Amino acid sequence: MTKITFIGSGNVAQHLIQAFLGNPGIIIQQLFVRNASKAILVDADIEVILDWSQLTPADMFIIAVSDDAIAEVSANFPLKNQFVVHTSGSVSLEQISNHNRRGVFYPLQTFTKGKEIDFKEIPICIESEFSADLEILQKISKLISDKTFIINSQQRKSLHVAAVFVNNFVNHLYQIGSEICQENQVPFSILEALIAETASKIKTLTPFEAQTGPAKRNDQWTIDSHLKFLKSDKTTQSIYKLLTQSIQENGKEL
Amino acid sequence: MTKITFIGSGNVAQHLIQAFLGNPGIIIQQLFVRNASKAILVDADIEVILDWSQLTPADMFIIAVSDDAIAEVSANFPLKNQFVVHTSGSVSLEQISNHNRRGVFYPLQTFTKGKEIDFKEIPICIESEFSADLEILQKISKLISDKTFIINSQQRKSLHVAAVFVNNFVNHLYQIGSEICQENQVPFSILEALIAETASKIKTLTPFEAQTGPAKRNDQWTIDSHLKFLKSDKTTQSIYKLLTQSIQENGKEL
Repeated sequence: MTKITFIGSGNVAQHLIQAFLGNPGIIIQQLFVRNASKAILVDADIEVILDWSQLTPADMFIIAVSDDAIAEVSANFPLKNQFVVHTSGSVSLEQISNHNRRGVFYPLQTFTKGKEIDFKEIPICIESEFSADLEILQKISKLISDKTFIINSQQRKSLHVAAVFVNNFVNHLYQIGSEICQENQVPFSILEALIAETASKIKTLTPFEAQTGPAKRNDQWTIDSHLKFLKSDKTTQSIYKLLTQSIQENGKEL
Repeated sequence: MTKITFIGSGNVAQHLIQAFLGNPGIIIQQLFVRNASKAILVDADIEVILDWSQLTPADMFIIAVSDDAIAEVSANFPLKNQFVVHTSGSVSLEQISNHNRRGVFYPLQTFTKGKEIDFKEIPICIESEFSADLEILQKISKLISDKTFIINSQQRKSLHVAAVFVNNFVNHLYQIGSEICQENQVPFSILEALIAETASKIKTLTPFEAQTGPAKRNDQWTIDSHLKFLKSDKTTQSIYKLLTQSIQENGKEL
């Protein structure tokens, strides 16, 4: 039975708590929040504490706060020689105070409030200062996910940057597509099958092999007509130009 | 029984021929190709012709050639008052010679050589000069797809531009992600679940609601650290900057 205490109750904390709850291998011992109003977001039978002095030792502490608050929260953490991890893709292990044994438990997924997720499919990237602690991380990760990866801080950072491209930026391109549809009274749902096929294709082809379209085939006539179509939205037009240029540079490299 | 003749044997033609073959409502009457070597790509029992003079009247002619060749091929088309359509997202109906009745049959999907596709799911955007011909298009579209949309040339153009964003450009972002992984010895497959969830999310949320990440939450610390991480690849760094800026402008608008 592994006793876990959460520091923070944001989006990632809530999804992890949901995944841990009812798991026979895990007890959620305490939940530390800065103010009581945050605690009502968790409707389980967990001891909620508001004061560092109430914190009791556990097998693992998960700091699930915003990236820029991790160092400060960890510096305020009152216990010594506990196993303390954060859940961030972009913060190094060293940001955690060295008064404790440090680690990282980074679930690589996009969490949306209110949308449930099958944790079994989510890759969990783990890292620890000491090898004994890596075993704790592996045990806990395997209880909720089928995909555990041991990843160092530099690799984790690269994964986080890559994730920004394939998730945040991809989603923003969906939004640009949806705005273009809206402005022309075309239902965005017409593009659903294309979006699904684009994401599915790269399971069997590399993205380079899967690339099609005017940029790839150097179809300047179509590129020009699209740029003209976008002339009233300078930012979107710049994105079209830059991504077209990047696809074309890429074609030349290989 | 609708008699269809294909002009051209590229990727789109081959996928359409596969979808039509064996359909009891359709006969593929002839396939016109510029040189015989192209014809061997079609292994069905279709009359392949190399000379315009061999062309016989049909219920519908599908010009499936590259966008910039449509006007020329249509100008060379020797018959009059036939129903002639092209399959392009970005070419207007007017590019077809007015010696014939004009139309468009645009399947909105990314076709990859050798990868079979379930046509039932593919939206087909149709347009015709005369309403009687629209009925032919609707009949044929419904034989192979569950999703038929009557779309004018301007709307079709907007859809094609939107499709470049949500398909070609999205796929290119997948490639950038895969390169970042490769350079850091991290398997790209770790990102598979995230890519699938990103595409799936917008079935229930708008892309605006689904947006997360450092740009959306104005997390300048993470943005700066990512830009520093990308400093050796100027184009990729520019893409990061521009898409971050676009997400942030977008947040302000609403």
